[in-house]
Amino acid sequence: MHRYRSHTCAALRKSDVGSTVRLSGWVHRVRDHGGILFIDLRDHYGLTQIVADPDSPAFKVAETVRGEWVIRVDGEVKARTGDTINSGLPTGEVEIFAREIEVLSTAKELPLPVFGEPDYPEDIRLKYRFLDLRRETLHKNIMSRTSIIAAMRRRMGEVGFTEFSTPILTASSPEGARDFLVPSRIHPGKFYALPQAPQQYKQLIMMSGFDRYFQIAPCFRDEDPRADRLPGEFYQLDVEMSFVEQEDILTTMEPVLKGVFEEFAGGKPVTQKFPRIAYDEAMRKYGSDKPDLRNPIIMEAVTEHFAGSGFKVFANMIASDSKVEVWAIPAKRRKTDHEPIGRAFCDRMNGWAQSEGQPGLGYIFWRKPENPLAISNEEFNEFDSNEQFAQRKRQEDAAQEALPKFEGAGPLAKNIGPERTEAIRKQLGLEAGDACFFVAGDPKKFVAFAGAARTRVGEELNLVDRDRFELCWIIDFPFYEWNEDEKKVDFGHNPFSMPQGGIEALEGADPLSIKAFQYDMVCNGFEIASGGIRNHLPETMVKAFEIVGFDREAVEERFGGLYRAFQYGAPPHGGMAAGIDRIVMLLVGAKNLREITMFPMNQQAYDLLMNAPSEATPAQLRDLHIRLSPVKKDA
Amino acid sequence: MHRYRSHTCAALRKSDVGSTVRLSGWVHRVRDHGGILFIDLRDHYGLTQIVADPDSPAFKVAETVRGEWVIRVDGEVKARTGDTINSGLPTGEVEIFAREIEVLSTAKELPLPVFGEPDYPEDIRLKYRFLDLRRETLHKNIMSRTSIIAAMRRRMGEVGFTEFSTPILTASSPEGARDFLVPSRIHPGKFYALPQAPQQYKQLIMMSGFDRYFQIAPCFRDEDPRADRLPGEFYQLDVEMSFVEQEDILTTMEPVLKGVFEEFAGGKPVTQKFPRIAYDEAMRKYGSDKPDLRNPIIMEAVTEHFAGSGFKVFANMIASDSKVEVWAIPAKRRKTDHEPIGRAFCDRMNGWAQSEGQPGLGYIFWRKPENPLAISNEEFNEFDSNEQFAQRKRQEDAAQEALPKFEGAGPLAKNIGPERTEAIRKQLGLEAGDACFFVAGDPKKFVAFAGAARTRVGEELNLVDRDRFELCWIIDFPFYEWNEDEKKVDFGHNPFSMPQGGIEALEGADPLSIKAFQYDMVCNGFEIASGGIRNHLPETMVKAFEIVGFDREAVEERFGGLYRAFQYGAPPHGGMAAGIDRIVMLLVGAKNLREITMFPMNQQAYDLLMNAPSEATPAQLRDLHIRLSPVKKDA
Repeated sequence: MHRYRSHTCAALRKSDVGSTVRLSGWVHRVRDHGGILFIDLRDHYGLTQIVADPDSPAFKVAETVRGEWVIRVDGEVKARTGDTINSGLPTGEVEIFAREIEVLSTAKELPLPVFGEPDYPEDIRLKYRFLDLRRETLHKNIMSRTSIIAAMRRRMGEVGFTEFSTPILTASSPEGARDFLVPSRIHPGKFYALPQAPQQYKQLIMMSGFDRYFQIAPCFRDEDPRADRLPGEFYQLDVEMSFVEQEDILTTMEPVLKGVFEEFAGGKPVTQKFPRIAYDEAMRKYGSDKPDLRNPIIMEAVTEHFAGSGFKVFANMIASDSKVEVWAIPAKRRKTDHEPIGRAFCDRMNGWAQSEGQPGLGYIFWRKPENPLAISNEEFNEFDSNEQFAQRKRQEDAAQEALPKFEGAGPLAKNIGPERTEAIRKQLGLEAGDACFFVAGDPKKFVAFAGAARTRVGEELNLVDRDRFELCWIIDFPFYEWNEDEKKVDFGHNPFSMPQGGIEALEGADPLSIKAFQYDMVCNGFEIASGGIRNHLPETMVKAFEIVGFDREAVEERFGGLYRAFQYGAPPHGGMAAGIDRIVMLLVGAKNLREITMFPMNQQAYDLLMNAPSEATPAQLRDLHIRLSPVKKDA
Repeated sequence: MHRYRSHTCAALRKSDVGSTVRLSGWVHRVRDHGGILFIDLRDHYGLTQIVADPDSPAFKVAETVRGEWVIRVDGEVKARTGDTINSGLPTGEVEIFAREIEVLSTAKELPLPVFGEPDYPEDIRLKYRFLDLRRETLHKNIMSRTSIIAAMRRRMGEVGFTEFSTPILTASSPEGARDFLVPSRIHPGKFYALPQAPQQYKQLIMMSGFDRYFQIAPCFRDEDPRADRLPGEFYQLDVEMSFVEQEDILTTMEPVLKGVFEEFAGGKPVTQKFPRIAYDEAMRKYGSDKPDLRNPIIMEAVTEHFAGSGFKVFANMIASDSKVEVWAIPAKRRKTDHEPIGRAFCDRMNGWAQSEGQPGLGYIFWRKPENPLAISNEEFNEFDSNEQFAQRKRQEDAAQEALPKFEGAGPLAKNIGPERTEAIRKQLGLEAGDACFFVAGDPKKFVAFAGAARTRVGEELNLVDRDRFELCWIIDFPFYEWNEDEKKVDFGHNPFSMPQGGIEALEGADPLSIKAFQYDMVCNGFEIASGGIRNHLPETMVKAFEIVGFDREAVEERFGGLYRAFQYGAPPHGGMAAGIDRIVMLLVGAKNLREITMFPMNQQAYDLLMNAPSEATPAQLRDLHIRLSPVKKDA
């Protein structure tokens, strides 16, 4: 028999009853039921119940074992009977009657429990990560992560992509974030950088004549701690293709990622055909370039209804500046038998807006107008005859008929009057019980707040169906944007993208009107992938950089490898990169990156398990030709 | 039709004749045959011949294109006829009659040719790596590398392993080589290190309750340039398993790697059952712990035949020191009809040994002794009668019979006399035409030279069959070794290995006699994998380190994460790591790591393509709390 096990802790079934087996694993839990010891033995694969009664030769050892000890158990498989069967466990129909127990390794008192899933301080969990990882949820998340990555690899292979690794010790890159630097020992005073992304390398791979590249690529950014990003390293599914247009990338990658989502969605619905939404449209409708499409609210401009209206704040803004618009955030009840949205909710949203630093959030809510001739209960009880009642009822009905079907309520409705209020309601398709919020001003300035308000309203009214994955493409990003601080034009996103219209557009059009062949994939309000068709034409590249103030020499210096490569036969190419950590989080439903990462650092970029970073020896620093800066006293 | 192509450059066949197609790719070659232009169009997939004659509307553009321009071609598939068919090309039965050619990208004058496979200076090749990679051999090597890695992944998955990525920004590790350090911005004066190997992490993964881990792991060592190792990063297939003994690792990993070799050996034979050779035996037989088993020479001790012999140099050494041995390196002709190994070859080997700083290389070679009564041609011509000849022939035969079958020649044979010479010949099973070389002294000191001599003899005599993959396991490595410089005991290889005999051996036995559960996999003279059963018992670990002079505190400080984990229920575990770069080199038959690496640095650890390492800005250094050391004038 094998030294440690004949079966895993997940293997035994009723059909094994009678066999002599050997298991090894961790003591998950020990219970003493009237002198009989029950040990739940756990390994990577599952749990099996071990029994030792005082007659068992293993009893003496069994009495000594404690949680998380590692033991080997020899014994006989017995059937469990009646209500001792645990139908929640694949091995729940059997137990092992222990004949011999060997302690393979003991455990000191545990700094955090492995049994159960209690909350526990983050720092203890990270220092004893090897214990935390034994817990069921985390163990499962890490296995899911691995399966998701394996599925990405498999699907990329199936559509003809080849995985190549790109260098990790490389040149400082101009991606925008801060590089991690690695001092060179052999070249004094010089530094390698860890790649923020393999962007230049994957383009060089296309220049090198390979056709469909992908990589599960480690990326490194020395950024300040943020709740939604682990410090240090992260992984992306990095993709590049040659001889393609935007449409090719979208139609190639959509099935890959849809497939991954469907494979791991646990039955939740996944968008079958990803809508393609232009950046401008996304900003108008959702106030965001990463809209959560599970939220049904679609914003609309309602400027005309406020122009020249009695609501002077908006009317004056509109009159004084042609850029000013008023956007509506229509809030429709989820179901018509839900509680109507009333003044209380609207005031709460107004208060929230003020807490966000806004002047407020104007609103209208609609109700059925009250019938002034409605028959009250009291009156009803006093009718003397049917005829008297019938006459009164006709009065009531006539009054009802004369009433408008909807009454807009709230200060705004009063100020603009019923006609404009009704026109707004009609435009937005709202009913009694629904409401609408309004933001006014220069859309560029309020759009982020409008998007946040849309999200807030959707969440507060429980309009967002959390049990689904809504995916879409955002396309046609602006190539340039206006940098208000420096009063100059900057690249909108990726300077390596091809501008729509090519060099002609760069030479002729208003830079701020030019769109890029650039796209994001968005799921449930998170950007999960981003990409573009690259600018492979050196002259177009130089022109694109000229507009933001770099000359040819600067381009050559900063992107030397790539720029040089473009001079020697560059295929049209493009690609994208998907954020693996974010996709895993969405699929396993984790709230924190540390729940889906095997050995994360803490938020202060410190690895509590391995004690990194740590001090270097003077000899190491000497070898690397560096010295530490003196620490400032007041720092 | 697609903007760039309806087919790849490898797709078209005779059955496509008549169809209108669109191809894109690089101009591999342009030839002008009597006014008709032939363009070999190349993409990732293959080559297709384009034809443009002066009647073609594409002729004008075709005349302008040059090597490595990227073009799109629309045209009609035509059958090639008779001797214009190129049977060496999958598309060789067709050509495209060009109707339209669009230049997608031009190329400047090429700094190195892409067509053909000429030798070219390394620095130019690295600076223009994107051109070099377009060449057929390199392109093929890189694709093979990728396929080999994919096969490793597939096979590891098939035997139940899961891939996990371990951190790249981590703690300085005590593996022995120099770490690359990464200054921390958030923690002034502290440094991350890039992992030399995920050794501690993979053991922590076992502590965390996962069972079978693998990873295609990037590893980083800041070593001085060496011909057989790229500076910076390399990849290993990293493996770890729980609840296993040495036998489990060997029987699990042997089929995986055998499978990979067979899959990519191109039909060359691969060892079917890897011999397991104890370290001591390997050193005795092959003078190396990475023996090339394609070399049939097996060394043997022949000390007794020299003890008290007339060869006083050896005899005196043996008499004066019991450690002294004489080893034989028997050189058997590859085939018995090959030229006999004679004095000239032996003297050449002796000269080589002297050039290696040795006093020389003693030898004996064997021949058939000459018959002193042999009938010469002259004599034969003078016989007068048959009878006279028959009588003389009987004399000749009798003399022949009296002769020894083998005669040992050379100074050593003379000194020790025919009996000892014959005893040596018999022990080694040599024949006339064979030879043997001898080294004497303390085997510890001469073994490396003996191994080198074995290799040299095998290669010079062409005994090594290069067209096969001979694999074996080397097991039972010594746990400790004697450090002559510091006059102390050191770890032989991996301090994390389990000593054979456990803590009892550490407490009782001579440390230098203790073996480790440690093993290498060797192919054709190269170590391609290395591993061990780990020491998972903290007390045994402390004891093992005590013997080399570290106390408990030092162990805690240097291996904190791992040592702490061992205290909380550690499963017995072990694993190995296989060198991917080396395996790829062997399989594709490359002589240089740069032939199987996409973007290598040069031997001076400089990336000529991306210009790394490079200078950092003062702001970057300030952020990282470091300064450059002043450069020494005389450095």
